[in-house]
Amino acid sequence: MTAETPAINVNLVPLPHLTDYLPDLKPHTSPLQHNHFYHPSHGFYLSPSDVIIRHTIYDLSGYSPSLLLPQPTTHYGVREIFGIKAGYRGFYSVDPVRLDVKMVHNWHKRGGTVLETSRGGFDLEKIVNAIEDHGYNQVYIIGGDGTLRGAVKIFNEIQRRKLYVGVAAIPKTVDNDVGIIDRSFGFQTAVEKAQQAISAAHVEAESAPNGIGLVKLMGRSTGHIALYATLSSRDVDCCLIPENEFYLNGKGGLFEFLDEQLKQNGHAVVVVAEGAGQDLIPRTDAEKQERDESGNPVFLDVGVWLKSELKRWWARDHEGELFTVKYIDPTYMIRAVTANATDNLYCTLLAHSAIHGVMAGYTGFVAGPINGNYAYIPMDEIAETKNQVDTKDHKWAWVRSITTQPDFERS
Amino acid sequence: MTAETPAINVNLVPLPHLTDYLPDLKPHTSPLQHNHFYHPSHGFYLSPSDVIIRHTIYDLSGYSPSLLLPQPTTHYGVREIFGIKAGYRGFYSVDPVRLDVKMVHNWHKRGGTVLETSRGGFDLEKIVNAIEDHGYNQVYIIGGDGTLRGAVKIFNEIQRRKLYVGVAAIPKTVDNDVGIIDRSFGFQTAVEKAQQAISAAHVEAESAPNGIGLVKLMGRSTGHIALYATLSSRDVDCCLIPENEFYLNGKGGLFEFLDEQLKQNGHAVVVVAEGAGQDLIPRTDAEKQERDESGNPVFLDVGVWLKSELKRWWARDHEGELFTVKYIDPTYMIRAVTANATDNLYCTLLAHSAIHGVMAGYTGFVAGPINGNYAYIPMDEIAETKNQVDTKDHKWAWVRSITTQPDFERS
Amino acid sequence: MTAETPAINVNLVPLPHLTDYLPDLKPHTSPLQHNHFYHPSHGFYLSPSDVIIRHTIYDLSGYSPSLLLPQPTTHYGVREIFGIKAGYRGFYSVDPVRLDVKMVHNWHKRGGTVLETSRGGFDLEKIVNAIEDHGYNQVYIIGGDGTLRGAVKIFNEIQRRKLYVGVAAIPKTVDNDVGIIDRSFGFQTAVEKAQQAISAAHVEAESAPNGIGLVKLMGRSTGHIALYATLSSRDVDCCLIPENEFYLNGKGGLFEFLDEQLKQNGHAVVVVAEGAGQDLIPRTDAEKQERDESGNPVFLDVGVWLKSELKRWWARDHEGELFTVKYIDPTYMIRAVTANATDNLYCTLLAHSAIHGVMAGYTGFVAGPINGNYAYIPMDEIAETKNQVDTKDHKWAWVRSITTQPDFERS
Amino acid sequence: MTAETPAINVNLVPLPHLTDYLPDLKPHTSPLQHNHFYHPSHGFYLSPSDVIIRHTIYDLSGYSPSLLLPQPTTHYGVREIFGIKAGYRGFYSVDPVRLDVKMVHNWHKRGGTVLETSRGGFDLEKIVNAIEDHGYNQVYIIGGDGTLRGAVKIFNEIQRRKLYVGVAAIPKTVDNDVGIIDRSFGFQTAVEKAQQAISAAHVEAESAPNGIGLVKLMGRSTGHIALYATLSSRDVDCCLIPENEFYLNGKGGLFEFLDEQLKQNGHAVVVVAEGAGQDLIPRTDAEKQERDESGNPVFLDVGVWLKSELKRWWARDHEGELFTVKYIDPTYMIRAVTANATDNLYCTLLAHSAIHGVMAGYTGFVAGPINGNYAYIPMDEIAETKNQVDTKDHKWAWVRSITTQPDFERS
Repeated sequence: MTAETPAINVNLVPLPHLTDYLPDLKPHTSPLQHNHFYHPSHGFYLSPSDVIIRHTIYDLSGYSPSLLLPQPTTHYGVREIFGIKAGYRGFYSVDPVRLDVKMVHNWHKRGGTVLETSRGGFDLEKIVNAIEDHGYNQVYIIGGDGTLRGAVKIFNEIQRRKLYVGVAAIPKTVDNDVGIIDRSFGFQTAVEKAQQAISAAHVEAESAPNGIGLVKLMGRSTGHIALYATLSSRDVDCCLIPENEFYLNGKGGLFEFLDEQLKQNGHAVVVVAEGAGQDLIPRTDAEKQERDESGNPVFLDVGVWLKSELKRWWARDHEGELFTVKYIDPTYMIRAVTANATDNLYCTLLAHSAIHGVMAGYTGFVAGPINGNYAYIPMDEIAETKNQVDTKDHKWAWVRSITTQPDFERS
Repeated sequence: MTAETPAINVNLVPLPHLTDYLPDLKPHTSPLQHNHFYHPSHGFYLSPSDVIIRHTIYDLSGYSPSLLLPQPTTHYGVREIFGIKAGYRGFYSVDPVRLDVKMVHNWHKRGGTVLETSRGGFDLEKIVNAIEDHGYNQVYIIGGDGTLRGAVKIFNEIQRRKLYVGVAAIPKTVDNDVGIIDRSFGFQTAVEKAQQAISAAHVEAESAPNGIGLVKLMGRSTGHIALYATLSSRDVDCCLIPENEFYLNGKGGLFEFLDEQLKQNGHAVVVVAEGAGQDLIPRTDAEKQERDESGNPVFLDVGVWLKSELKRWWARDHEGELFTVKYIDPTYMIRAVTANATDNLYCTLLAHSAIHGVMAGYTGFVAGPINGNYAYIPMDEIAETKNQVDTKDHKWAWVRSITTQPDFERS
Repeated sequence: MTAETPAINVNLVPLPHLTDYLPDLKPHTSPLQHNHFYHPSHGFYLSPSDVIIRHTIYDLSGYSPSLLLPQPTTHYGVREIFGIKAGYRGFYSVDPVRLDVKMVHNWHKRGGTVLETSRGGFDLEKIVNAIEDHGYNQVYIIGGDGTLRGAVKIFNEIQRRKLYVGVAAIPKTVDNDVGIIDRSFGFQTAVEKAQQAISAAHVEAESAPNGIGLVKLMGRSTGHIALYATLSSRDVDCCLIPENEFYLNGKGGLFEFLDEQLKQNGHAVVVVAEGAGQDLIPRTDAEKQERDESGNPVFLDVGVWLKSELKRWWARDHEGELFTVKYIDPTYMIRAVTANATDNLYCTLLAHSAIHGVMAGYTGFVAGPINGNYAYIPMDEIAETKNQVDTKDHKWAWVRSITTQPDFERS
Repeated sequence: MTAETPAINVNLVPLPHLTDYLPDLKPHTSPLQHNHFYHPSHGFYLSPSDVIIRHTIYDLSGYSPSLLLPQPTTHYGVREIFGIKAGYRGFYSVDPVRLDVKMVHNWHKRGGTVLETSRGGFDLEKIVNAIEDHGYNQVYIIGGDGTLRGAVKIFNEIQRRKLYVGVAAIPKTVDNDVGIIDRSFGFQTAVEKAQQAISAAHVEAESAPNGIGLVKLMGRSTGHIALYATLSSRDVDCCLIPENEFYLNGKGGLFEFLDEQLKQNGHAVVVVAEGAGQDLIPRTDAEKQERDESGNPVFLDVGVWLKSELKRWWARDHEGELFTVKYIDPTYMIRAVTANATDNLYCTLLAHSAIHGVMAGYTGFVAGPINGNYAYIPMDEIAETKNQVDTKDHKWAWVRSITTQPDFERS
């Protein structure tokens, strides 16, 4: 099907511009180009020739395989639904829980998971055996990237065994690190709650002479929560994320920047994603050896480390002056919170979308929104991608222009 | 520029389907087709041949006029910013308020508007005179559709006078009735807060035998808040919006539906958008004459009317049985609330986007997101469109399948 | 036992006073005595000779009847607990609901009542018959003053029949109109939530030229919620309660006061308890006849009436000037909310206290705090009293001094 | 004045008791006496002969020195008010901030302190000199026990110098460790917010097999926040406070109790006050030497220690079984929060009460509620007392009966 590549016709209308009727107008030159903390890179912004396409759904039925399938509808007369407890291991080590409407009635008003969660314990053979033995004919798998990689394996094994079992995955991770789709479920709730932690840090920082509020936010490989919370709250002076290496000392470093902020405002708020600065934190020999379940080096606590480095810096450079660091790690208070309206809505639509897809016979897909429309995306494609903060795009540019933080590119 | 219509090449990859390896598979037929409350219309759902385009920004520089403009950047060295109080009339009837960073520091943490608002009082000549007299060279106008129509007139007059004044509009309306863009500022906060009202109505309804919780939500010409709040909360049994005419009595009417709900669950929650049912409410002769500032018939209070109709219905059909209607009108508690994180973020990006556009010389535009990207759209196009709930698309389909409410199409 | 009246010895220590070492000091005279809105009455404040007793529990065992009873303890090995649905009528018209720990596990995290509530339907014979028939030996009755009067009747009938049934009542009413005890369950949550409504009204009032925010709060016979919310929020300019008659026009009236407030601040917030101003609202002949279930004249909606009176006043006295009234009736949003920590704690202690009392053999009592200690008070005494706002005491004085509102005593 | 000790007459009315009309009734014996975790001590409960006094204000004017003072009133025509920044050192090291109504208008809606705070830096001579030099004639000092001890010194020095300066202190500490008064400002807000942390811990614990939620709450010398939050939330299985020594291993220890809880419920929530268990945590030699500003041994982090001890215990006794500890330290998120309605009200009344007292010429006092009435208490008495949790009284008894936690008294 790749060859047909249809042409989509677009009509372009130019935007009014002052030069349309004032042809001699001279453009602004940007004074920020001389700011020594701020070096906007090429490609930071959309250019005047960039065009955003609004209608993103096209009926390409001429190009699509003709399927004799019903329209996805609801109320399919499903007889039995089971919940699997405690993650993948739950397929074979715990009895499934029979779910009904009354039982799950208020689950969306609670945080956490009634079905429990656990890490590790993935035995492919046993899982697919359990699916066969229990006679499940649809499997919905909810989780983040580790979960999705497991789902791909399960789907492949089901295909290999030619089972009449549809498999769909639903992207749920507060970190928002799932690729291709617009965002993952839980992310906006996390940003909302993260803002409260930042607000608390701001209050604490403002309440002390030379007060620094330090907030560690979730995000091992990506800084989305830190980035969005920074843009939302407007109280952040510096946002540190894994995608943007930083350094502490010397020209253009964090301490130089904070020194200036404290001189100007008397306080500062720093947000750090948990995956940031992992290369900066000294590791003991034991920690160098230690690996997590996936074989990666274990994560060290960047918040605790940064707090102590800040204190050392101040004691070294500002002896006798008052200084306070208030460190907040809101991780579990963010995780445990009930979904907000946006995520509740999103989750409703995800669930319906996934069910319709499986009922229509599709399988091996992730249900998720692309440009606001609920699409089905092949599972393996999602599992291979990673949604990282693009420090060359405009969102990060906005963080930089709001905070005026350094770009941490040693010149 | 219309003629060039570039071809955008897309590679299409088919989604796995059970029929790929189970060719004899019979599809489900939808049992819902026999539900007498639920008639899914043609086009309700995306069809298998629909394709959603993910990359929606294309560099069409070959097709675009070549502009010698700087990249939009921040920190332009602006010297003076003024706020206009009390709406359009404020241009000529009140002194402008000089704004500085310290003054506006915490404005985004408050609801309402520090600059005050008012209705009516638009004198085009006086407004543009004031813009000239004060020497403003950039005008940012924030508001909903009435405000946008005024902004178009101001922009046209500025063009006519060939003033060196950039004009940008920022779409702010909780109703989300601005067309073309993804959503307007304030909408998601309103949905979040509306959910609390629905939740309260649900609690009240559940706490009484034959309890009905009735919530009136904002939305004069569109039911977006009602729709989104219904999908978010999951507690709603019937959602009435202006785009979907309804009726009370008889087969397929509201009362028949509620009767069934009360029998089954003992309670029900009804959400009604303020613009719904305007044709059903009897008007006095005076009300028939009365017009609002724009010359339209005045709105009658659908919530108060529906509450009394519900009581009359019950007294008529269920004499002696317990019955309670708890009516909640959360309008001002929703309007006055502080923006949530999503709207705060959105507003930050809107503001930056608008400033960059004006600084780059664009004018007469609305700044707003299209498919998640911040675009500049000609102001008059926005002013001419109206974002209404499409009762033929999948979002409304989902409302229908969650609530099982009737489609109110008299058969 | 009345005769013994023990003497309690108190040691009084004088408080330091500037005149101790500055004997010639002249006292301040109060400038407020000349404020024409503010006439503090005799007895408004504690006087220097008033003494507050701190230790309020005295062991008067010499004076008390010697009871051979066990210490109240928990975990009594109770076998069966039933809930009665839908109020008093539920004793004889609905099956009781068997309660267990798992079932009620999260009830305290929900607003409203799972057991449902209803008004009216009290048939003493049938209720006590049901208690006998089901073999209940302890009855806990939760509610406000109407409920308490019913409880007294039930207790008296149980005494008359000499049943082995302990009866305890737990005071629950957001209005806080239960006498003798410190406060009733739900009141502080209501005040907390009422503050949000006031805050919204304040935001709306501030956002409009000559904006008035009007909030109707619960309280038919008492203005406690209005009073406490006013003292908590600090945004209120005038607080109208049933205990303090008011008038609109003329010298010292509401409109004169608001006129001055709008001139000075541009906006004003008015809080009105639902029972205030009932005598001012004109009644139709039908309304004059109408009685509620207890035979009292029906309540008219003071909020809706006051809103229209405000508009009439402005149109009459300030023609052509901008004016806005934003009216908020948060009643059901307050009622439906989950109890806050203070009320949760209070409720826990009330419940334990009531159980211990009944288990120890006491009966016919209300469990409630007096000066912070959980006491048992004879039910009939509570049913006879009414906790009203004392407009002669210091709390009301504080409202007056915060708001500078008139005392509405026509001079 | 000590000698006069007036007799207060009280009328005692007995409470109904089932034995009044059922004289042969046998009392319940408590089955809890056989629970091996629960040993109620003597004095845990009020006894039947305890009497609670309701009217706690008596006019003892015959016994009081006759003062020719005005009634405290408001609106005293004060001309200038200054705020001192950054604590006691601010008297002599920073310029005072002139406060006016407009400036402080919204301060009560923010958390933290606009005037900043700091520890240490108390130079009595310089402070009182500054008071003289600036010509302050009233000093209001807001803070906890350290602040109050400083206030006593300032008051004494002012007395010694015979200055015409009134001194009042306002008790503000989330810990609620100020003696004599009912509670300190900030405490109820802290309990409210602490409940959210407990709720998050509960959600996390419930979401994992053998999940333990561990929450560290404020309270160095007292466990009030832990106690009240435990009674409010009902989700806590064990509450550890400084006033109740505990141990981990062996019979009746924490681990034995948690083992049983996990077996029964699959999860458990533990709350620990920051001052609890300080004697159990091993100290390095350096830590043994280290003293804080007041010369006391430094506090070690009981939360971090307990988390690691829990992990060690499980690894030792339950090898191979799933286990999770989720540790939440909400300290700064609690501290930074805006006061709730109860504390806002309390603070309003405290402030008014303090002002009236000083205006009336009283000095050297703390303003605070005793049994709900706002009293003036000599400052030195307050500074000498400490409000600790009485583990012999009924509040702690209720914690014990709700949690069924051990009493940690090695038998």
